[in-house]
Amino acid sequence: MNKIEHIGIAVKNLEESNKLFSSLFGEAHYKIEDVLSEGVRTSFFKSGPNKIELLEATNSDSPIAKFIEKKGEGIHHIAFAVDDIKSEIERLKTEGFIVLNEEPKRGADNKWVAFLHPKSTNGVLIELCQDIKD
Amino acid sequence: MNKIEHIGIAVKNLEESNKLFSSLFGEAHYKIEDVLSEGVRTSFFKSGPNKIELLEATNSDSPIAKFIEKKGEGIHHIAFAVDDIKSEIERLKTEGFIVLNEEPKRGADNKWVAFLHPKSTNGVLIELCQDIKD
Repeated sequence: MNKIEHIGIAVKNLEESNKLFSSLFGEAHYKIEDVLSEGVRTSFFKSGPNKIELLEATNSDSPIAKFIEKKGEGIHHIAFAVDDIKSEIERLKTEGFIVLNEEPKRGADNKWVAFLHPKSTNGVLIELCQDIKD
Repeated sequence: MNKIEHIGIAVKNLEESNKLFSSLFGEAHYKIEDVLSEGVRTSFFKSGPNKIELLEATNSDSPIAKFIEKKGEGIHHIAFAVDDIKSEIERLKTEGFIVLNEEPKRGADNKWVAFLHPKSTNGVLIELCQDIKD
């Protein structure tokens, strides 16, 4: 795992949170992206080599809607950049981690992504992500 | 804010979690440090330009003990590296953020640290940190 690629934060209202995090970082978000398959609208902020991804649910079945209902707004996941997501999934399965999707799926920001179940990682939802090279 | 300096993760048993995160990163923690004033024992892992800090409570009054009692194990805070913590505290106060300690205090890893109240930051406990230069 090369670095923290981004931290995902669940928010109720993306527009308001964009203002809040712009004040925090002293710099506005640089993009907004919908991920239809996950029922989320995301915005991205830069923090040096890392990013912060804000996530707003676009429907009530979205994992983000369910997360906020259960836990309130806050940190939803940590994403680590990897070079080879398929071999990393295999390695982590061998180590005993529960991989939620063994076949990487398309996530936001042009990435292949896979998630580890928080049960196997001290309560932390971990995403692995790899740039998609078309 | 220059980058994510580290992510702090609250754990019940540091020894067991050190094994878990060593398997995750494919590399062991590089140090253990007690922060007596906070009632925590910490361990640190590298992830490229970032760190992961595991936090175990060393007494029942520790903020980490209270966090785990309320929310269970999981992500406790995000720390951002800043060049000048005092001016950053002033800037953030002016922007309306609630600073928990207006006077920076000594944290783990030879840093001056200050925290923002999650109420003012979408439920995210944010730490500012600056290297102590003796």
